[in-house]
Amino acid sequence: MILEKIKKPNDIHKIPLEDFEPLAAEIRDFLIRSVSQTGGHLASNLGVVELTLALHNVLDFPEDKLIWDVGHQAYTHKILTGRKDEFKNLRQEGGLSGFPKRSESPCDAYDAGHSSNSISAGLGYVHARDILGQKHHVVSVIGDGALTGGMAYEALNNAAELKTNFIIIINDNNMSISRNVGGMSTYLSALRTAEAYTGMKMGVTKALKKVPKVGTALVDTMRKTKSSVKQLFIPGMLFENMGLTYLGPVDGHNMRQMMKLFNEAKRVEGPVVVHVLTKKGRGYEPASAHPDRFHGTGPFDIKTGRVLQKKTVPGYTDVFSKALVSLGEKNKKLTAITAAMPDGTGLVEFSRRFPDRFFDVGIAEEHAVSFAAGLALGGLVPVVAIYSSFLQRAVDQILHDVCMQKLHVIFAVDRAGLVGADGETHQGCFDLSYLSMMPNMTVLAPKNDRELEEMLAFAVSFDGPIAIRYPRGSAHQGLREYQAPVEYGRSEIIRKGKKIAVLGVGSMIPSCMEICKGLKDDGYDPTFVNARFVKPLDVDLLDELAKDHSLFVTVEENVKSGGYGEHVSAYMEACHPEIRVLSAAVWDRFVPQGNVESLRSRIGLGVEDIRQAIEDSEELREQ
Amino acid sequence: MILEKIKKPNDIHKIPLEDFEPLAAEIRDFLIRSVSQTGGHLASNLGVVELTLALHNVLDFPEDKLIWDVGHQAYTHKILTGRKDEFKNLRQEGGLSGFPKRSESPCDAYDAGHSSNSISAGLGYVHARDILGQKHHVVSVIGDGALTGGMAYEALNNAAELKTNFIIIINDNNMSISRNVGGMSTYLSALRTAEAYTGMKMGVTKALKKVPKVGTALVDTMRKTKSSVKQLFIPGMLFENMGLTYLGPVDGHNMRQMMKLFNEAKRVEGPVVVHVLTKKGRGYEPASAHPDRFHGTGPFDIKTGRVLQKKTVPGYTDVFSKALVSLGEKNKKLTAITAAMPDGTGLVEFSRRFPDRFFDVGIAEEHAVSFAAGLALGGLVPVVAIYSSFLQRAVDQILHDVCMQKLHVIFAVDRAGLVGADGETHQGCFDLSYLSMMPNMTVLAPKNDRELEEMLAFAVSFDGPIAIRYPRGSAHQGLREYQAPVEYGRSEIIRKGKKIAVLGVGSMIPSCMEICKGLKDDGYDPTFVNARFVKPLDVDLLDELAKDHSLFVTVEENVKSGGYGEHVSAYMEACHPEIRVLSAAVWDRFVPQGNVESLRSRIGLGVEDIRQAIEDSEELREQ
Repeated sequence: MILEKIKKPNDIHKIPLEDFEPLAAEIRDFLIRSVSQTGGHLASNLGVVELTLALHNVLDFPEDKLIWDVGHQAYTHKILTGRKDEFKNLRQEGGLSGFPKRSESPCDAYDAGHSSNSISAGLGYVHARDILGQKHHVVSVIGDGALTGGMAYEALNNAAELKTNFIIIINDNNMSISRNVGGMSTYLSALRTAEAYTGMKMGVTKALKKVPKVGTALVDTMRKTKSSVKQLFIPGMLFENMGLTYLGPVDGHNMRQMMKLFNEAKRVEGPVVVHVLTKKGRGYEPASAHPDRFHGTGPFDIKTGRVLQKKTVPGYTDVFSKALVSLGEKNKKLTAITAAMPDGTGLVEFSRRFPDRFFDVGIAEEHAVSFAAGLALGGLVPVVAIYSSFLQRAVDQILHDVCMQKLHVIFAVDRAGLVGADGETHQGCFDLSYLSMMPNMTVLAPKNDRELEEMLAFAVSFDGPIAIRYPRGSAHQGLREYQAPVEYGRSEIIRKGKKIAVLGVGSMIPSCMEICKGLKDDGYDPTFVNARFVKPLDVDLLDELAKDHSLFVTVEENVKSGGYGEHVSAYMEACHPEIRVLSAAVWDRFVPQGNVESLRSRIGLGVEDIRQAIEDSEELREQ
Repeated sequence: MILEKIKKPNDIHKIPLEDFEPLAAEIRDFLIRSVSQTGGHLASNLGVVELTLALHNVLDFPEDKLIWDVGHQAYTHKILTGRKDEFKNLRQEGGLSGFPKRSESPCDAYDAGHSSNSISAGLGYVHARDILGQKHHVVSVIGDGALTGGMAYEALNNAAELKTNFIIIINDNNMSISRNVGGMSTYLSALRTAEAYTGMKMGVTKALKKVPKVGTALVDTMRKTKSSVKQLFIPGMLFENMGLTYLGPVDGHNMRQMMKLFNEAKRVEGPVVVHVLTKKGRGYEPASAHPDRFHGTGPFDIKTGRVLQKKTVPGYTDVFSKALVSLGEKNKKLTAITAAMPDGTGLVEFSRRFPDRFFDVGIAEEHAVSFAAGLALGGLVPVVAIYSSFLQRAVDQILHDVCMQKLHVIFAVDRAGLVGADGETHQGCFDLSYLSMMPNMTVLAPKNDRELEEMLAFAVSFDGPIAIRYPRGSAHQGLREYQAPVEYGRSEIIRKGKKIAVLGVGSMIPSCMEICKGLKDDGYDPTFVNARFVKPLDVDLLDELAKDHSLFVTVEENVKSGGYGEHVSAYMEACHPEIRVLSAAVWDRFVPQGNVESLRSRIGLGVEDIRQAIEDSEELREQ
């Protein structure tokens, strides 16, 4: 095993070039075996084995800075920097992260998780290097999918003015998680299919300085022909026009060619884009045939590629998916928008049934929201389905474009609350805060599958900005016997008791059920409320409950600051100071990866802890 | 006066073409006279008089949709749609908005204020039109400055796939508010200086379909020459490569040429970019010579161009400006970043003194923040100076890139609180909420000029994400005798009394002084606290004050949801339920334009109202 010789950063420099091919095969084999047991991102990592080896060949760690965009493709980088043995705990609580993490290794230059920021971060590193008089190389690796995100363009626009070396590698696999979209994608595809071109372009930087007049003459010729500009295709011209040197395209599975080009790129005095063509899932047939399914996967059978644990209960995403199709049949104005996540957000079926009313805008959350505002103004009913943590990208657009104009845009906020294995970057713990601070916004959270359906129907019939947040994973199927119709601003009383009122938000309702059961077992008679609306607060109900309760307990999967608990506390403080409020919420720290149940206990949302805190409360002891 | 014939939308269609030139002159004259009295955005509006006239000539309102990016250039549009007489109340309370407002006219298609969203909004209108089987035209007008914002690119990327007409006009004046930056700007400048080209390009869309092979042959020729791709310049190629038809450039002050080109653009079956060259401040010498000073101006003397009311007291921006330069002299790692606002944020002097440590990234708040994260990781100390309402654009980057990695990035949050005449879109009423929800973040607000200096020095010596928010306008100079050093997490007691404690945040400290004075005059003995830190809360002080107070009053220029008052309420509710908390904050509605003092009274922050509410409070009456 060549792989066994790699124990620490730069060990790769001792491996002879002829061993790189077999080493790549060993790494690929290791990745498949490892991820088949732990689950994780597979297709993206199989795609960049050779790219990573080639980069490690030409770079020195930790001096050189390598920034992986999104970061779900850094497994080979982790192996090459001495973390191979930790893959057995990949994405487990306390184990190896599925993303780059500076706390794991000095060779990880930037903690990642969200998309399209690697060029910005890299450019920061570059200017710091230059100001501090250092000499190392900075390389940002960005996928063609992440290039649909506007901040990547903001960064390219700024990088163009640079006079020192900065290497931007476009890892072009022609995909986001799903098929990639937009004009840039079409452009990159055209580059892909252009003739192999690498040899000639190797000298482009030198040629730049030598023949300034030839180009001008050619332009004149072309002007005279009045030919179509669109037909006129010069590889890399789009980047060159922006002021970036373009090298490539190069076969991302041919290490010798890549190393040659990377060494060339290191000599460019300015920003250089290297266009690398890779194939997601390369080397493992099930993954290369279905890269979307193997983007993030659970443990699977290597032989068949089949995932081992089958879902038995439909997830909230599935419930949303079906409900939206059903509403789309009745309402021809209903449209759906995703930001590169048709699968993850459950919009695939809608897109099949109503292709004209479905929009995948790419990784472009900001555009998604303002685009939806335009659709709403044009007379349609847009549903924007985005994960909670990614919707953070569009806070200003929700506030400035949608809420300020009081437009009927529906936000389906998936993955709200803890998400588990993806960790810090993906936990959806802030949406209740950033959404409820916005004037004109309505914020809901369903207790179970049926309520999500009802809330979605309510949202479609509503008029104004409205968000429904629901968690990752299985939809709760309990409490279906409680089906009070969803009414604007009204919470639902599931059980009327006295003294203690437990008010739960959406994803925490199952935990609240258990808390209430525990309280009953201990002789208490708790009232159990399903908040339903986080904004507006159901102050009528709070007033009513104030009459025969002494303790309110709020439970939510969101940070305390700006969340439901703070709103209830502040209201009670102002209007019913005699009532105590105990707020259980996500702690004021980032929540690491791990099992959701176990994490809840750690961050202040464990069922037993909350029950105990209630029973320990002075209000109950005193009475 | 031709202008008198324009009473309502489409009246322009009755004006013969030969009258357009004199009409433009009349409008320009009206704008100069009007804005010289009310103040407002002048340079941008003088630049688009002819562009607007040409657009109104070829469009029908309100059927056709015209979307102005940012919107500070829509004055002529307002005049042509019957709002000329309302200019006497421009930007006053209850008067005409300085931005497009759907509530003012059905001819305003999209409420604007923030930058770079017009193409997204327009694309939404286009798809709605097509889905609903309508036939009108949709035109988005975006400045070259706004094109540095990533979401404009996200929208272009999506627009490229469109099969129906959508007109995107680039209003290229070679400026943001200040000089424009980046590769795209350089590119547009190159187009500007290319030979006049309009005539030939008029037929480009037809040519597209006819001569597919000529281009290919030319590419082959060029490849053989190995010429520099950068030298090879074909107007519009960057846009054409993305899949957008490019027309132009055209002289933005030549109406006949523009009308011809716009009519051509209306016939393109797909997205079309029309490149229009304008001059900011055109036709008024002081404004064309100093377009930045006449971007937004107060009332001025027409003859000299001098602003009538001179500032007597330095603004917070001035204080920040000087303090940063002084810190930059001592600390060679200090760097400053602005998003196209070197003047507005007070970074001009820093940029002159330390050009290598100053970065204007263009209108690109997202990039600005992740770029700062990279600078911090590279060993520098970045200060990101952005207005409160624009920083909303970068919530995810502050959270995901800076706070999650616990990086030492300093946020100088200018224009926090009410801003006055710019209205809804520019009020900085949310930053305390969106910043304090973030783990690892520290949030401060100074009471006066000296404290801003001290806080900035504190922030530079700190280690971690830290934000200082301060308002627009004159820096408070009172209370300078209170100069307790800034200590992490500590509020400052300005006056120790009993029963009532007034806790003010930054910009509201002068109001709190008056409130306390009123209370004293009425026989009370209030404690007066300068919060200083909104995050973390000074809970030790709250505990201490709980001993001899019965009522806390919090006063802040931020919405209640997620603000300082809610944090204090929730803490007191949990730990000192016997104390009542009265929270004065911005109401849960968008705050319109107007005089700041007068607005405060309307939204629940008037000195007298708060004092009265305190004296009416049950806690005081009962004791």
